[in-house]
Amino acid sequence: MRLTVYLAGEIHTNWRNEIKEKAAALELPIDFVGPMEDHDRSDNIGEEILGEQPNAIFKDAAASNFNNLRTEILMKKADLVIALFGEQYKQWNTAMDASAAVAFDKPLILIRQEAHHHALKELSRKAHATVETVDQAIQALTYIFE
Amino acid sequence: MRLTVYLAGEIHTNWRNEIKEKAAALELPIDFVGPMEDHDRSDNIGEEILGEQPNAIFKDAAASNFNNLRTEILMKKADLVIALFGEQYKQWNTAMDASAAVAFDKPLILIRQEAHHHALKELSRKAHATVETVDQAIQALTYIFE
Amino acid sequence: MRLTVYLAGEIHTNWRNEIKEKAAALELPIDFVGPMEDHDRSDNIGEEILGEQPNAIFKDAAASNFNNLRTEILMKKADLVIALFGEQYKQWNTAMDASAAVAFDKPLILIRQEAHHHALKELSRKAHATVETVDQAIQALTYIFE
Amino acid sequence: MRLTVYLAGEIHTNWRNEIKEKAAALELPIDFVGPMEDHDRSDNIGEEILGEQPNAIFKDAAASNFNNLRTEILMKKADLVIALFGEQYKQWNTAMDASAAVAFDKPLILIRQEAHHHALKELSRKAHATVETVDQAIQALTYIFE
Amino acid sequence: MRLTVYLAGEIHTNWRNEIKEKAAALELPIDFVGPMEDHDRSDNIGEEILGEQPNAIFKDAAASNFNNLRTEILMKKADLVIALFGEQYKQWNTAMDASAAVAFDKPLILIRQEAHHHALKELSRKAHATVETVDQAIQALTYIFE
Amino acid sequence: MRLTVYLAGEIHTNWRNEIKEKAAALELPIDFVGPMEDHDRSDNIGEEILGEQPNAIFKDAAASNFNNLRTEILMKKADLVIALFGEQYKQWNTAMDASAAVAFDKPLILIRQEAHHHALKELSRKAHATVETVDQAIQALTYIFE
Amino acid sequence: MRLTVYLAGEIHTNWRNEIKEKAAALELPIDFVGPMEDHDRSDNIGEEILGEQPNAIFKDAAASNFNNLRTEILMKKADLVIALFGEQYKQWNTAMDASAAVAFDKPLILIRQEAHHHALKELSRKAHATVETVDQAIQALTYIFE
Amino acid sequence: MRLTVYLAGEIHTNWRNEIKEKAAALELPIDFVGPMEDHDRSDNIGEEILGEQPNAIFKDAAASNFNNLRTEILMKKADLVIALFGEQYKQWNTAMDASAAVAFDKPLILIRQEAHHHALKELSRKAHATVETVDQAIQALTYIFE
Repeated sequence: MRLTVYLAGEIHTNWRNEIKEKAAALELPIDFVGPMEDHDRSDNIGEEILGEQPNAIFKDAAASNFNNLRTEILMKKADLVIALFGEQYKQWNTAMDASAAVAFDKPLILIRQEAHHHALKELSRKAHATVETVDQAIQALTYIFE
Repeated sequence: MRLTVYLAGEIHTNWRNEIKEKAAALELPIDFVGPMEDHDRSDNIGEEILGEQPNAIFKDAAASNFNNLRTEILMKKADLVIALFGEQYKQWNTAMDASAAVAFDKPLILIRQEAHHHALKELSRKAHATVETVDQAIQALTYIFE
Repeated sequence: MRLTVYLAGEIHTNWRNEIKEKAAALELPIDFVGPMEDHDRSDNIGEEILGEQPNAIFKDAAASNFNNLRTEILMKKADLVIALFGEQYKQWNTAMDASAAVAFDKPLILIRQEAHHHALKELSRKAHATVETVDQAIQALTYIFE
Repeated sequence: MRLTVYLAGEIHTNWRNEIKEKAAALELPIDFVGPMEDHDRSDNIGEEILGEQPNAIFKDAAASNFNNLRTEILMKKADLVIALFGEQYKQWNTAMDASAAVAFDKPLILIRQEAHHHALKELSRKAHATVETVDQAIQALTYIFE
Repeated sequence: MRLTVYLAGEIHTNWRNEIKEKAAALELPIDFVGPMEDHDRSDNIGEEILGEQPNAIFKDAAASNFNNLRTEILMKKADLVIALFGEQYKQWNTAMDASAAVAFDKPLILIRQEAHHHALKELSRKAHATVETVDQAIQALTYIFE
Repeated sequence: MRLTVYLAGEIHTNWRNEIKEKAAALELPIDFVGPMEDHDRSDNIGEEILGEQPNAIFKDAAASNFNNLRTEILMKKADLVIALFGEQYKQWNTAMDASAAVAFDKPLILIRQEAHHHALKELSRKAHATVETVDQAIQALTYIFE
Repeated sequence: MRLTVYLAGEIHTNWRNEIKEKAAALELPIDFVGPMEDHDRSDNIGEEILGEQPNAIFKDAAASNFNNLRTEILMKKADLVIALFGEQYKQWNTAMDASAAVAFDKPLILIRQEAHHHALKELSRKAHATVETVDQAIQALTYIFE
Repeated sequence: MRLTVYLAGEIHTNWRNEIKEKAAALELPIDFVGPMEDHDRSDNIGEEILGEQPNAIFKDAAASNFNNLRTEILMKKADLVIALFGEQYKQWNTAMDASAAVAFDKPLILIRQEAHHHALKELSRKAHATVETVDQAIQALTYIFE
């Protein structure tokens, strides 16, 4: 049995590669999917496809079309969602994707540093599990296949 | 026809009263519901009911039980969700509630200042409408009943 | 038992008033809802609330926010949808609303002139009933309460 | 990961072949499905299977049985729907299929010429993205797999 | 708390009145709904509204439009469905409505004479309860309110 | 693309083999599933597994456990349901399975002789198509793959 | 806004009256529903309606028809489920009802003595909140209306 | 056609191996999944991943995160759930999983000794079939593939 795991969350560190490599080292039968990780490309995709927009807000609106399209198609394929909250930025997309996962009955693992426990307490309660490190998430993935 | 509107988002300003008063002045047939607006009470409700917890994290976990219970019961009653993002704090609850509303097919109006357009672009695209002021949200509510 | 009926379709003739008056004359316990019938207001609502937009396309996009918001909230309340196709215009909104009604398991009555039977054959097959006049729709409504 | 894409819309130009060829040239792992593209066959399938019908309307009704059967089975298999509006005809089937896709939570890409923006504004708002050319739709498909 | 009960099944005996009278005598807070009980009207409603049809089959098809419309609207309102199988006729409508009730998660009580136990065994297993008399069904309704 | 088709209905003629052979001859990529076709085994399976039952009614109840279990598992796998009504017996199971298919959004093809049109008019209206012969059903299956 | 609360769980103590009285004293706008609390009646209802059964197992099966019918109708009406685990008996019904509540997206409050924490840990994790006393449950109910 | 079967219930006997071996001997095309069968590991997984917890209750809460995560992912994959009730322990997890299976429309087979018939009567009524031995469950599985 193979599982598909959607990796939601910040795209400024290489945590996705870390998870993929560790899962591969453990030979976990998992296919990972996730958002566009090239931040500039993610911001510009709207204008790339639709052409120049009137201003920054419309440029964002145009980009969000294709980022949401991508996320919804891939998250629908997922058996599990792992959402990581990093140290900076608003990360409202991460909260949005994590909440959508819960609403669509996709089991959710939250990775967040202890410092974020207060701001994430309600979302954390909705997640199946909240951990602080990628290694703990890998342990949870391993447990599913034992 | 009466509608129930859930007012999600920050609880540090009195925007909810502003909406309620303006809707009342316009005699819109709307019942408003929302989260606990007393921040301390919202943080302490877990220990109030379950007693002292081992540490701040468990105190938060305890509180989230009852805050989520309240939110889910009331949001289920809502025909529409209005989520306001303020100027400060992480506001991940607001993003969580707004995203849950969309996932549960509750029409969503987002209120956010222009400065937040980039961080909210994907959530904004999922909302039925994004506005910048309470008055604009009131105009949208009025339009439904015209 | 009262029913709520959403009247989808063209807003250039007064067919909605005709249905409401005839239902009232028959004392059918029905509450009617529907889209904004003032065409200009429907086209301009986006700019009225959000301010001037860069061009006609963005003006339309802005208006569609609030027209869709209105339609989804009201159609969710409906026990039945009646969609009337008139003689002119593309009327893609009418087809969109009628199809959404079917997808959301809302019984659908289609009113269309015989000349449209070919272009509407697949949608007509999805409807519970297709009639050619408002009077026939009234007969169908009456039958539900007999 | 392979995706299945349903190509809804007009069957009078060869836009489907164009998309299929361009997707193949880019080696996108996509299986395309769609409606019967032979217009006469689509109109006659009812009488072919059920025999001659009393008149043109019943002939249409008979054909719609099998066209809807085909569309619903294939659209259920789709991860994404692309709907193209051409220059002529009422194209209510296209609006019906596009709206059904949205209602069934199938991500939707709309292809329409700028001239149609007004008539399609509400449907366009429900789509994940609206573009004007097949090439732009191909760019969107490519983005999903990057 | 009031309940709405849909009374599906044969329309050739007055079992519905019997249930209504006995429920009224017990002052059970129940609103009863059901199909058109005038058999001729049920058979002719299609031609009454749509005009004469080419033959008996098309006359039946026309009538089924409005009978299904009525049944679906009323059954959606029901908290419980009671389906009675009589002694004669095919009664495929009764089996259809009873099965639809189960599929739509409407609790179902089956009333059938013992002689039908074999032909109804699978449907009976899907029902919440199978009884042989109207009085037993009344006992079940009473039990809900005790 | 392969499809799974559930063949509901009477088990006293070999119509299933006829469909399977004709689909095979046309090389249609279809997997067929269906109920237990050995009538005695279907009636006795309850006592075979659970042992002798107190009387015929309990024997039927016991058998229905396993027949419903089988049907629900297999029908869930189906993309399409074909239900054939034969000339004799009550065939309430056939009506039950056909109605369940519709309720679970499984496209349905009804095969029934013309003589049954009146008794099946409402169920026929819910089906995607109603035909009179196995050959016509095969034509419909073929059309899906063209 | 009134809420309906289903009180699942043991019927050997008068905890339901305690909750009802305390909620009444606080004037909480709550309608309480629940299972048949007369244990003998609950065990005998099957034979009361269907007559004597062959043995104790069939007597239980008969009773379960009407107990499940009652529970499903009333739980569907509930906005919230409170399930109390007592000190004795298997209480599998309580676990069944609590789990069904979660699966049907009904918020759940578990009341259980500390001694049961281990046996209930997975169910407790699925509940919105787990408390040890009726008074704590009342506090939670009160919090919803503040 | 392969099926996936989730084996819920007690983990103190080797009934799962018995089922797997007998299914293998019969060459039934079934993939079996289930909970962590190492009781200590199941109890300790929370602290293994999250570190030492304040007390036994929090240790249980921590473990339940990962046990529920595992169960929900695997049960979602199942076409059928078999739940076995053993002779000892509260087994509320078994009742919880069995009830969740029913609520999620997963066909359910209950295995329980006769002595438990009274305590399990309502859950048994919701199951598709209740048997007393693993061999009877194997017969039921075999019947599906005949």
